[in-house]
Amino acid sequence: MYRWTKMHTINTKKYDLRTDLVIDNNISNIKYKHNNISVSYYEKDGYKYSSILFKDITDKDEIKSIEECLIKELNNYIDSNNILIVGLGNKNSTADALGPKVLEKILVTRHLFSFGNVEEGYSKVSIFEPSVFGVIGIDSTKLIKKVVELVNPDICILIDSLCTSSINRLNKVIQITDKGINPGSGVLNDRGELSENTLNCKVIAIGVPTVVDMDSVIINILKDNNINEISLEDNLIVTPKEIDYLIDKLSYVIGNSINKVIHPIIRQNNSIK
Amino acid sequence: MYRWTKMHTINTKKYDLRTDLVIDNNISNIKYKHNNISVSYYEKDGYKYSSILFKDITDKDEIKSIEECLIKELNNYIDSNNILIVGLGNKNSTADALGPKVLEKILVTRHLFSFGNVEEGYSKVSIFEPSVFGVIGIDSTKLIKKVVELVNPDICILIDSLCTSSINRLNKVIQITDKGINPGSGVLNDRGELSENTLNCKVIAIGVPTVVDMDSVIINILKDNNINEISLEDNLIVTPKEIDYLIDKLSYVIGNSINKVIHPIIRQNNSIK
Amino acid sequence: MYRWTKMHTINTKKYDLRTDLVIDNNISNIKYKHNNISVSYYEKDGYKYSSILFKDITDKDEIKSIEECLIKELNNYIDSNNILIVGLGNKNSTADALGPKVLEKILVTRHLFSFGNVEEGYSKVSIFEPSVFGVIGIDSTKLIKKVVELVNPDICILIDSLCTSSINRLNKVIQITDKGINPGSGVLNDRGELSENTLNCKVIAIGVPTVVDMDSVIINILKDNNINEISLEDNLIVTPKEIDYLIDKLSYVIGNSINKVIHPIIRQNNSIK
Amino acid sequence: MYRWTKMHTINTKKYDLRTDLVIDNNISNIKYKHNNISVSYYEKDGYKYSSILFKDITDKDEIKSIEECLIKELNNYIDSNNILIVGLGNKNSTADALGPKVLEKILVTRHLFSFGNVEEGYSKVSIFEPSVFGVIGIDSTKLIKKVVELVNPDICILIDSLCTSSINRLNKVIQITDKGINPGSGVLNDRGELSENTLNCKVIAIGVPTVVDMDSVIINILKDNNINEISLEDNLIVTPKEIDYLIDKLSYVIGNSINKVIHPIIRQNNSIK
Repeated sequence: MYRWTKMHTINTKKYDLRTDLVIDNNISNIKYKHNNISVSYYEKDGYKYSSILFKDITDKDEIKSIEECLIKELNNYIDSNNILIVGLGNKNSTADALGPKVLEKILVTRHLFSFGNVEEGYSKVSIFEPSVFGVIGIDSTKLIKKVVELVNPDICILIDSLCTSSINRLNKVIQITDKGINPGSGVLNDRGELSENTLNCKVIAIGVPTVVDMDSVIINILKDNNINEISLEDNLIVTPKEIDYLIDKLSYVIGNSINKVIHPIIRQNNSIK
Repeated sequence: MYRWTKMHTINTKKYDLRTDLVIDNNISNIKYKHNNISVSYYEKDGYKYSSILFKDITDKDEIKSIEECLIKELNNYIDSNNILIVGLGNKNSTADALGPKVLEKILVTRHLFSFGNVEEGYSKVSIFEPSVFGVIGIDSTKLIKKVVELVNPDICILIDSLCTSSINRLNKVIQITDKGINPGSGVLNDRGELSENTLNCKVIAIGVPTVVDMDSVIINILKDNNINEISLEDNLIVTPKEIDYLIDKLSYVIGNSINKVIHPIIRQNNSIK
Repeated sequence: MYRWTKMHTINTKKYDLRTDLVIDNNISNIKYKHNNISVSYYEKDGYKYSSILFKDITDKDEIKSIEECLIKELNNYIDSNNILIVGLGNKNSTADALGPKVLEKILVTRHLFSFGNVEEGYSKVSIFEPSVFGVIGIDSTKLIKKVVELVNPDICILIDSLCTSSINRLNKVIQITDKGINPGSGVLNDRGELSENTLNCKVIAIGVPTVVDMDSVIINILKDNNINEISLEDNLIVTPKEIDYLIDKLSYVIGNSINKVIHPIIRQNNSIK
Repeated sequence: MYRWTKMHTINTKKYDLRTDLVIDNNISNIKYKHNNISVSYYEKDGYKYSSILFKDITDKDEIKSIEECLIKELNNYIDSNNILIVGLGNKNSTADALGPKVLEKILVTRHLFSFGNVEEGYSKVSIFEPSVFGVIGIDSTKLIKKVVELVNPDICILIDSLCTSSINRLNKVIQITDKGINPGSGVLNDRGELSENTLNCKVIAIGVPTVVDMDSVIINILKDNNINEISLEDNLIVTPKEIDYLIDKLSYVIGNSINKVIHPIIRQNNSIK
């Protein structure tokens, strides 16, 4: 009786598998392994790409190793102490809330610098949560450009939930690149590039695939079974049941790692916000 | 390189389609239609089952019609003014947050009765959010039994997000029954029945399918294509991208409808909490 | 043993009583009374000032009258349908969360206009929550200026929790002016004016006194008792115990009233987001 | 024009200064000092009372010392590994949200024990947030008794925001006792004792004064000035402006300390949830 609201036909032959931020399926990119974690790294067209691949972020030993690897990689990207951190995504939608949740962990100091009373060992750090177009009616990309103009950081770190085509990477890889990002290229609509070209400061994007779009899942199954066409509602996403717990752990490890890399005194003391 | 953590083989032949709370695919159950909404109703083994099926809860006209139908149906179930309302589910996981979000809308009065200063037209209403086993370490079903013992209501209204096998019902039907519910029979593990038998008071369950389990989706596709077996990770759920917005609208309409049915004075004034 | 961290001496003689946004103690400004509500209005230097004074926002009848008066007054200020609504304050601090909580009620449409599919009767509305300097490290006033540049509204509506010197106005008056506001002039530090002069669009400020600063309370007591000097910690605020409940009701009535004034179709239908 | 809703006359002579949980103004109780922190301890009628007094919980070095002292004291109270932790208070009201916010930090394991797969070094821990009478319409004290019956812990740890009469202790002392607590004896109405007598398990109460009631502040001022009577609205509380930040830090240090004391493996690894 009920029809899907929006139907589209997928031609599985034309469909290209897509991975966000970093394309790292080349085994030759493996830089090192550390317990259960593999870190891959490569450079292309002058940009750096890192992936930290792991098995279980809810394991208390593995999460420490992930943090160690993430800190090591981030040190290869962050080379200034005037930093704006932007948490992309919709905090009301669990799988899309990684960016906003990482911001909650960040030790913000820019206001203290304006009061003139900051100890040595702290960088000048501010945060911004642009929310999403559908919630506030303002385009995230344009909003971030305005905020970068105002704050004038040397580095803008963008954190985002990604949409992947590969179900077995879901919540199992943290990707980093200095090439930039197209926010909403995954779950939402394309809103334009956020990169050094468009923001006029160094851009570091950190992402985790937290959802798979339904099309990709179906296509992979169908391909294996020689089916070439199928009709599907076009706004469905696939995510693990325990996504709230995984997002908690991911935002914890990313937030802590960023704090330790950007504020030398925190790493030294091994203290956490 | 990475393997799915938990694999299982689905035999699509043995798999029975399952709908939670209410089985209403029989066209003969249609009680009435109202604008875009169809209301079905039947009785079986002494229990009542209602379904309010709609097309688009985000449409401003349709949401009013849904509320009218829901109030009409609820009036057929609620016949006392000593009521406990329980919001099942995990408020941190958007698709599972319907129960807790409905509670936010409910006009609670039980404490006012204990102070002795309640105007006529209000029922004696308390709310309880049991959270989930994985978050608090206490079994929801057992916890609710203890709370019912303490509060001693005539009616316990249970509100829950459901897991359906039918992708085209997702967020498009509100189901009501006085038979009870097995919380967690959808997204989580089975935790035992909540019904008049186990709670010793009248039980009314209100549910909305907000997720589909991945297995069901795949099975439907495969069946149509004569494929009989496939291996899948077993903890994936499928949900629309705009689930946060849909849950907002659903909890708004369910919360308001309950308030108007349980507190006569609110319906009369057409005011909203 | 413990000393107050920051001490200052108040000279009660020099202390001028301050009311935010609107100075309305002149009885001659009363425009009309409606049930328990008094509405005062005056103009000065070309600016308009309205106050809606009430006794108990938790009373179900009084809240309707407050909404009627607020809608009537707002209609006197809002004369365009291209609107940005800004919720000032810190959503994590209950008494300061009025602005962010009002935003949750606003029907946002600006993104729909960009998709080209908006029915008649809706204005073009976006929202922005600048958070506070101490949380994000970015100055609210400067941030709002950038957002106004980007969104280019005809009217910017600013909603803020105010700090009053008068304990008996606490949560009992909604003030409106088109003169603008100095955010943080109450609870936080002064951050510069937000007005038509600085934002280059019409500015309408809506505020409610939700806290009293401790100094004002003490001064009033001491004055009555002929005491002229006392030492006090300087960062204390006074608020009612049930502030969370009052903020809920205030944000409900302000949010609904704004929706009905800015979106003609909502007022007409008497529907609520 | 407006009258305070509830007036009462305070006779300052009869007013006894009250401190919650622990009376520790006796200098002879000082057990040890550690950097800026003083720890006092005494026993009375077979019950233990500890206070950890500090100056600035927002100082990164001091917060570590506070954690060390708190762990040391808690070790003197907690002697079983079957534990229920209850967070009293209203999470929607910043100053009253300490209990619920500590719960967010606790590593919960009771559900894992029921699945039979817990590593050594973890205790069996569940949490419960009873909310408050005015929000859910169910009495917290009675609700906690039911939950204790169900969970059957050896120890019930109760965490609560306290109301103190001493403005200079505000957010500057963590108090511990095994005597129990009267929740709501501070901010809310008295709801009956929570203690070993009423819960039939060992009870450990942990509290921090986060608000002062206005009466106490005024009384202290007036006493110093030989004024004996004054009329005041009776539901006002006093709190620092930056209460959200202080509650964050307090819940962080209390949550971490509890985790380290109850789960031996966490202390050993110095890891944090």
